[in-house]
Amino acid sequence: MVVVMKENATEEQIQKVIARLVNMNFDVHRSTGVSKTIIGAIGDKRGVDPRTIEVMEGVYEVLRITEPYKLAGRTFHPEDTIIRIKDVVIGGDEVVVMAGPCSVESEEQIDTIAAAVKRAGAKVLRGGAFKPRTSPYSFQGLGEKGLRMLREAADRYGLLVVSEVMDKNKVPLVMEYADILQVGARNMQNYDLLKALGRVRKPVLLKRGMAATIEETLLSAEYIMAGGNYEVILCERGIRTFENYTRNTMDISAIPVFQKLSHLPVIADPSHGTGIRDKVAPMARAAVAAGAHGLIIEVHHDPENALSDGPQSLYPAQFEKLMQECQIISQAIGKKMDLRLPPAKALAAG
Amino acid sequence: MVVVMKENATEEQIQKVIARLVNMNFDVHRSTGVSKTIIGAIGDKRGVDPRTIEVMEGVYEVLRITEPYKLAGRTFHPEDTIIRIKDVVIGGDEVVVMAGPCSVESEEQIDTIAAAVKRAGAKVLRGGAFKPRTSPYSFQGLGEKGLRMLREAADRYGLLVVSEVMDKNKVPLVMEYADILQVGARNMQNYDLLKALGRVRKPVLLKRGMAATIEETLLSAEYIMAGGNYEVILCERGIRTFENYTRNTMDISAIPVFQKLSHLPVIADPSHGTGIRDKVAPMARAAVAAGAHGLIIEVHHDPENALSDGPQSLYPAQFEKLMQECQIISQAIGKKMDLRLPPAKALAAG
Amino acid sequence: MVVVMKENATEEQIQKVIARLVNMNFDVHRSTGVSKTIIGAIGDKRGVDPRTIEVMEGVYEVLRITEPYKLAGRTFHPEDTIIRIKDVVIGGDEVVVMAGPCSVESEEQIDTIAAAVKRAGAKVLRGGAFKPRTSPYSFQGLGEKGLRMLREAADRYGLLVVSEVMDKNKVPLVMEYADILQVGARNMQNYDLLKALGRVRKPVLLKRGMAATIEETLLSAEYIMAGGNYEVILCERGIRTFENYTRNTMDISAIPVFQKLSHLPVIADPSHGTGIRDKVAPMARAAVAAGAHGLIIEVHHDPENALSDGPQSLYPAQFEKLMQECQIISQAIGKKMDLRLPPAKALAAG
Amino acid sequence: MVVVMKENATEEQIQKVIARLVNMNFDVHRSTGVSKTIIGAIGDKRGVDPRTIEVMEGVYEVLRITEPYKLAGRTFHPEDTIIRIKDVVIGGDEVVVMAGPCSVESEEQIDTIAAAVKRAGAKVLRGGAFKPRTSPYSFQGLGEKGLRMLREAADRYGLLVVSEVMDKNKVPLVMEYADILQVGARNMQNYDLLKALGRVRKPVLLKRGMAATIEETLLSAEYIMAGGNYEVILCERGIRTFENYTRNTMDISAIPVFQKLSHLPVIADPSHGTGIRDKVAPMARAAVAAGAHGLIIEVHHDPENALSDGPQSLYPAQFEKLMQECQIISQAIGKKMDLRLPPAKALAAG
Repeated sequence: MVVVMKENATEEQIQKVIARLVNMNFDVHRSTGVSKTIIGAIGDKRGVDPRTIEVMEGVYEVLRITEPYKLAGRTFHPEDTIIRIKDVVIGGDEVVVMAGPCSVESEEQIDTIAAAVKRAGAKVLRGGAFKPRTSPYSFQGLGEKGLRMLREAADRYGLLVVSEVMDKNKVPLVMEYADILQVGARNMQNYDLLKALGRVRKPVLLKRGMAATIEETLLSAEYIMAGGNYEVILCERGIRTFENYTRNTMDISAIPVFQKLSHLPVIADPSHGTGIRDKVAPMARAAVAAGAHGLIIEVHHDPENALSDGPQSLYPAQFEKLMQECQIISQAIGKKMDLRLPPAKALAAG
Repeated sequence: MVVVMKENATEEQIQKVIARLVNMNFDVHRSTGVSKTIIGAIGDKRGVDPRTIEVMEGVYEVLRITEPYKLAGRTFHPEDTIIRIKDVVIGGDEVVVMAGPCSVESEEQIDTIAAAVKRAGAKVLRGGAFKPRTSPYSFQGLGEKGLRMLREAADRYGLLVVSEVMDKNKVPLVMEYADILQVGARNMQNYDLLKALGRVRKPVLLKRGMAATIEETLLSAEYIMAGGNYEVILCERGIRTFENYTRNTMDISAIPVFQKLSHLPVIADPSHGTGIRDKVAPMARAAVAAGAHGLIIEVHHDPENALSDGPQSLYPAQFEKLMQECQIISQAIGKKMDLRLPPAKALAAG
Repeated sequence: MVVVMKENATEEQIQKVIARLVNMNFDVHRSTGVSKTIIGAIGDKRGVDPRTIEVMEGVYEVLRITEPYKLAGRTFHPEDTIIRIKDVVIGGDEVVVMAGPCSVESEEQIDTIAAAVKRAGAKVLRGGAFKPRTSPYSFQGLGEKGLRMLREAADRYGLLVVSEVMDKNKVPLVMEYADILQVGARNMQNYDLLKALGRVRKPVLLKRGMAATIEETLLSAEYIMAGGNYEVILCERGIRTFENYTRNTMDISAIPVFQKLSHLPVIADPSHGTGIRDKVAPMARAAVAAGAHGLIIEVHHDPENALSDGPQSLYPAQFEKLMQECQIISQAIGKKMDLRLPPAKALAAG
Repeated sequence: MVVVMKENATEEQIQKVIARLVNMNFDVHRSTGVSKTIIGAIGDKRGVDPRTIEVMEGVYEVLRITEPYKLAGRTFHPEDTIIRIKDVVIGGDEVVVMAGPCSVESEEQIDTIAAAVKRAGAKVLRGGAFKPRTSPYSFQGLGEKGLRMLREAADRYGLLVVSEVMDKNKVPLVMEYADILQVGARNMQNYDLLKALGRVRKPVLLKRGMAATIEETLLSAEYIMAGGNYEVILCERGIRTFENYTRNTMDISAIPVFQKLSHLPVIADPSHGTGIRDKVAPMARAAVAAGAHGLIIEVHHDPENALSDGPQSLYPAQFEKLMQECQIISQAIGKKMDLRLPPAKALAAG
């Protein structure tokens, strides 16, 4: 913490601040300039509220100098975290794509979509069984039945499963079926849920809240990691701004920022990030070009009749084209996508 | 819903849209202008996603014309909701003040503060027993022990109790001790919690999320009311904007907007709305001047040593002065505050 | 400036930073902690870009410790600036109200409105002659003819004149007619205009830009003051946020923040701050309750037929009632409004 | 315009609204549903303020159905605008890059940088001669001398010139030297400047204001086009949001949205969009991947000693690598970049 005193602060005020900091177990260094005094307080004091000093008399400003997160940051863990689930590796130089419908609706629906996304090169099947809906009058998901359908379809096509868990009591249930547990944007600061996920040993996909700063997102990852679960995947999915042509404003620059501050893998969700089908592909490509470790995308074979988020779901053919475009883009920055297609064909299709 | 077709939309595209709307059970009215066709779709279809039509070919724009909330809105409930708890009336012409520490810390602490806020004219004692903290390394509250201390102190001074419930499983526990159940800003869209609160019969204080629109806040109230619990108090507590001198930007204009759209009582939380002690009083006065039905304010007798939010807590003397100022302001707009002090004295103090 | 080095910064990196700072004429103080090194750089270096140091190797963060404004800040000018124009005093303990139509439309219109706002207690007549309009197809103002009408009406009723100047070339023209020169929100960072206003000797009413931080607003005031014109009135008029029920979100808390950081008078514009007539009065009252030195309000006797901003203009009767409410509120915080009405009558009307 | 009446609106209120709309020369269509009445008002009425109807009694909501811009929109101009300047084509399938220093500082500086950006494949040289600076104490540009140096350097290397014009009086001067006239973000709503640019016949590069919606940006383009100058290039350069790790939040999704709504070319400015050197390349690549027609990038051979924006300027080697990455990305989406390098070499370098 650095405490900047006012130009006209009295010596007594300065001494009081120093005494308080010493009392809080900080190492204190004082720099007295011609017009200003600065007090450096050094020590590992996570959880201290800088406003405690800020309200003292004679204080102009208090500046925090320690990242409030430790496990999620690069300082003590400079190398990238690589998460391995079966034969899928997240966080390395491969761009991993998770795809599927917003909600699991029926066995046939999830099977059709699983086949389509597998064919196009996805590695993980997404699908919601418990849906957080803004309106109490909207479809709320199939529950456990949906999870079972999702797992069976994924197994049929050799895909992993990611699905959202909305409540700490549902963690054991969702764990039975999913390989990756997703925390939705609205729950990013549901601390009871985060703590429960800290106690399990399954990778967690943590979506950035729509009003969450990058730092707060890392603090939510810290909650999970503080419990001993180090396999957290960060996900940018759009923030709320004054521009409302798109549902949210996808903060593509958060991808390289997260990667600078943290060693955790970072993926992007252009479906929720934009909320409009014809903006999903451009933003998916942008995320890969900016260096994302992966994508999570809504795909539906019959979006007109989808029970939720149809308007932002890609058709399978659109998804396939997008995958091929992203493969080329990933090569431009020294990454790769394993689509099991000859690169020449991919280039031609682009 | 009103569907505006593009100027060059074909008759076939128009017919497809009409067919789809009829299929969704809307009454359809078509207006054909020289250059544009507009299709009005009338019917009570809550939960329909307007983007379903928006992505159809030939469609320029879809405009929603029904409020998505019904129970929380004024349309079917024009008169103000009045909530009576013992002898306290919230939602009428009295400005009701809830005050107390951020967290319950000890028996002595809560007793001292309860006495002080009672003396100044507060009607409800606030205090957290379960604290949602951004950092996993911060104080997390005393739990049930804290709730018991809070209740006992309140009873000693004839105050009601409001306290936050963070998880649906804790609803029965908090209900035992509190008269009003508070939903924090971070949980405003924790739908499992909202549904659980819909099933109980105690007033709920619902804080606006820091990125929640006014409409989304009313939809969260609707979740609770859809379960049969109609006693919801809305609370403005600051939204996230680009300005970060203050922790949040308190949206004072939301107070009259909520009151226009909804019949529910609206209070304001200037402590979290600003995050800085010397801004609490101006914003509390502003909220009353804008017509708020009440205030919820953090007060601490020893904020330097508070375990949380000390820097935004008022000293008892500041709180007392504020109450007297608010009493005069409430009179300016035909409201009142019952401070059990002769108005003359209050005026002189102002 | 305080430079925080990374935990693993090398001694060589630290030395390079120190050399660079010395080279920039800073006094340098080094604090070496167990894990972190902090470098304090003290000196009055306005205009230095902290990112210059931030991009150096081994640097974790650079924190600015000097306010970038000097003339507008309280540090070297602790007492409030009081602006006297004829018999009107702005910045003292009287709440001064400026009122009038958005645009001057005709002699009769401005005369009718001037009479009405004078009767209610306004001290300054507002009215636009050059209108900045988002659409090129909207009414753009009467120009000099409008200014003349405005001045004549003001003189007839003993009012001062405030009017907007949009371009530096128009400064001499507007100066001929107005007592206060207004800079609109869209021009808050039109630096050529600000410099031109720095060279004149008339008070300037500077509106906060809709995306301007409090600091940037003070820097724009600094531009004017750096030219020698110290009579600047700051005006909060709403910022752009994700909430769009209201046109802008009025940042009432900016009023006490401006007053803490700066000695300049601060007024509020609830007409543009909300954009909706029935929200103007609550927000005007809120601004006074928060401590504003004045208000600027749009009033029109026939808003249905106003050429601009009719929907946010108050009717004269609404304005009169508001003035009486504000008078009571100003008393609550030790201020006053001179309505030339017996206070008893005002109280009864409230 | 579509007027939605309240459910309990009286027939008299409905008739008044209809009369008013007829009076405003709209074609009126009425749809009476079981519970709600909707009034469609059709006609080309740009510049009408919908709030005029919104404040009438019985009105629930007014929805605008016409884009407020006409020349900038796709409705009457479906095909893309292609701007040809000498042998450079902007708006077609080639991604055009503009690059150079923030400010022109000296003949040697601009020559060195012009050579470097030309070699890497840029087509246009950027450089500021008049600088809008937030602080009055910062470097303000070399003025005409700077423009001359810029032109000479560009001519030496066969580059076009883009430079900012900040004031309408400077339009003739900047026109003498520049091929493209740039309007900065802070001037996006400086209507006098926009009108002046409407009267000239040179392409204008219009930067989106940092609080400007997509629609407002198009309205500013409309101002220029309404004067007869149809060659406007839109530029996304970041908007202001609550996230302040980056200077602005670059709204990459605005690129495809602008392209859907308007026929004008759209480029991106990742230098100002992020404000940090190591975020420029990821965001430049993201913009190309999202479909931008071009980029404008700050490059400096000695950014440590740049007089402005050094920390966000790329080194020439970084710029060269970025160009090669962008070339591959542009191919992924059926576009191209003419770097005059064999594609094989480019691929290897990527």
